[in-house]
Amino acid sequence: MKSGTSFLLAARQCEIAELEQLAQSSVLVTVIARFIHALQRERGMSNIYLSSGGARFSQQRAEQVAASTHAELAVRAEFEKLDTEGFRVRNGARLFSRVAVVVHACDGLPALRARVANHALSAEEAANAFAKLISGLLAVVYEAADAATDPEISRALVALFNFMQGKEYAGQERALGARAFASGAIEPGTVQQWRHLVESQDANFQAFADFSDPQVLRVHQASRSVAVLEELDKLRGIARAGGVLDTELTQHWYETASQRIDAMKVVEDFLTAHLRSLCESRIAQARTELHDQRAQLHELAARAPQPDAAGTTPYGPQLERSILAMVQEQARRLQAMGDELESVRATLNERKVVERAKGLLMAHRGLSEDEAYKALRQMAMNQNKRLVDVANAVLSLADVLPGGAR
Amino acid sequence: MKSGTSFLLAARQCEIAELEQLAQSSVLVTVIARFIHALQRERGMSNIYLSSGGARFSQQRAEQVAASTHAELAVRAEFEKLDTEGFRVRNGARLFSRVAVVVHACDGLPALRARVANHALSAEEAANAFAKLISGLLAVVYEAADAATDPEISRALVALFNFMQGKEYAGQERALGARAFASGAIEPGTVQQWRHLVESQDANFQAFADFSDPQVLRVHQASRSVAVLEELDKLRGIARAGGVLDTELTQHWYETASQRIDAMKVVEDFLTAHLRSLCESRIAQARTELHDQRAQLHELAARAPQPDAAGTTPYGPQLERSILAMVQEQARRLQAMGDELESVRATLNERKVVERAKGLLMAHRGLSEDEAYKALRQMAMNQNKRLVDVANAVLSLADVLPGGAR
Repeated sequence: MKSGTSFLLAARQCEIAELEQLAQSSVLVTVIARFIHALQRERGMSNIYLSSGGARFSQQRAEQVAASTHAELAVRAEFEKLDTEGFRVRNGARLFSRVAVVVHACDGLPALRARVANHALSAEEAANAFAKLISGLLAVVYEAADAATDPEISRALVALFNFMQGKEYAGQERALGARAFASGAIEPGTVQQWRHLVESQDANFQAFADFSDPQVLRVHQASRSVAVLEELDKLRGIARAGGVLDTELTQHWYETASQRIDAMKVVEDFLTAHLRSLCESRIAQARTELHDQRAQLHELAARAPQPDAAGTTPYGPQLERSILAMVQEQARRLQAMGDELESVRATLNERKVVERAKGLLMAHRGLSEDEAYKALRQMAMNQNKRLVDVANAVLSLADVLPGGAR
Repeated sequence: MKSGTSFLLAARQCEIAELEQLAQSSVLVTVIARFIHALQRERGMSNIYLSSGGARFSQQRAEQVAASTHAELAVRAEFEKLDTEGFRVRNGARLFSRVAVVVHACDGLPALRARVANHALSAEEAANAFAKLISGLLAVVYEAADAATDPEISRALVALFNFMQGKEYAGQERALGARAFASGAIEPGTVQQWRHLVESQDANFQAFADFSDPQVLRVHQASRSVAVLEELDKLRGIARAGGVLDTELTQHWYETASQRIDAMKVVEDFLTAHLRSLCESRIAQARTELHDQRAQLHELAARAPQPDAAGTTPYGPQLERSILAMVQEQARRLQAMGDELESVRATLNERKVVERAKGLLMAHRGLSEDEAYKALRQMAMNQNKRLVDVANAVLSLADVLPGGAR
């Protein structure tokens, strides 16, 4: 019959297996990030190529297709490594079904590219097709983040997912802007869509910041070029004014947006490397702990006076207590990790609380969504609290807020 | 290279494997429920035995020890079946570490019983030792509930866990009451502890009701004997009055509390059987769907005009679309299941919202905790809403609540 200590060691081994699974996921996420980046570039170039009737970016697009294909093969190679037979992948059902969607969409890429080359679809249709594939790839990243059992790794994955999603909105903005400038005109609907893409980026980058440690945030801060951001805002302002746009600005828009996105790529590379090293160090740590635990149990057994006839209590009462302490300590530690993991998940839910608090401030104080968000952020900074705590306080103290009847 | 459809089928197979894992967990949970019930009886008898200086329940206790040991062996046999080598158990690390605690505590049962037989410990110490083992067993059930990937099964497990936890508080109340009546006196501290046990039961049974379907609730309703509950409340009232207690009421208290707990056992048996049949029907359903999906893919492949040279798109464009629809449908279905699962988990978190709303009502209206809870329940019933929705409404509409300044 298996003893309590054998379950103790089995628990530790499971923990290592789960971490190894996460390490494999982090490699998968890394190659997906590269593939998405390549697809984002290809999308932008395809857009200008189509919007300009083939006059621009013909050569660059061809080169980018080769780069995208290269990145795609790396992703497919990682998909191949997924254990679809052994059921060792934590949330296999959901992950594999996401992978199925992606593989299927990848199979359709050659046909999509042929249609772009032959001007057989509009710039917008092409952009949407790329966006769909990228959204499928991001869903794979989301499943990887959702399957994480280690709170620190889970936090890093959630931060990375939000960063990638924010970067994708930036990529969609680049494509949308490129289409608008290249076509020489902008509709009010496009202005609205553009604004939505900018707001979505802000929300994702805020979530990224909430889940990141100071080291990551410093890298992010250092990557941002004020000159590029100012130039981007200037071009956004020109487009937002609506009406006729100078087609000569297309290249400039594309390059400015690309400078910003390429800077994001540097942060993304840092995030994926950070994630992989986090997995490795957690695995090394867990292995050391397993080794120590084994040695400790071995020593305890050696010091045991004599095995009991029934074989149920092979250690003396004092050694019994040592083992009990080990068993309880491990259960407590895993419980604490579980609670922390739950709180990372809860924070994802808590983002809804922030939305509700924003709504309340908008109603109470007649603020715009953006102003309400900034007010919450300001309160959080002033009170040195997390955004969600301030949002909760706003909701529960709604009655003492000045002004505005509902 | 694996195709999109092979990942599609792998996802389905994972789903079946996860359900089979849950079916195994539901058997484990069933034998744990039986073991806990036996331990609860043994605890109650040990309490009276010790409190009465060995005058009462000597024979019954000896018989109950045999029954407990029998139930323990069934649990240990299920522990043996756990796959500690293959890492197929979803949250192995946490589950095995809980099992380690339980196995260790079970190893200590013979020594505990010897001390009870020799009056070498107080009734309270004995009760605490049993409560600790039961709490360890409930932690195993909690991990099983936490690992569920199917929302319906997850809900059934959460309901069962809360029912078992509520029943355990009822068992602790029985033991506490038995000690109090047998000793002939009650301290204010004990009255306080008693009240806490009753409130904890109410909270757990409320959670059980929130997660249960009408069929289960009817069984629960039918199991409750008004006569027994009234008698129990009468005895609780006598004890709550404090001071000297009639030791002759010990047996009567024990039997009345036992009648209630034995009725709970009937519901518990129904819940575990319900859970097992739920797992079986979900497995059968998933197998049928896998079979249908395979047949459908086979048919599509047979209708394919001819394989493409590159081998990437073996189906014609129309068949392509059929497969795309299948792939997307499955991803959507699993997404919906994931969202629902998330909402079951969120509801567990939302219980905290109810606590906060209660606090608000207590502050605003000067209600006691119990009155605040009843007020929320009444609002929920009147508005035909869930308790948590009412609690959320109370929190966000705090400013329109009548009376009470903060």
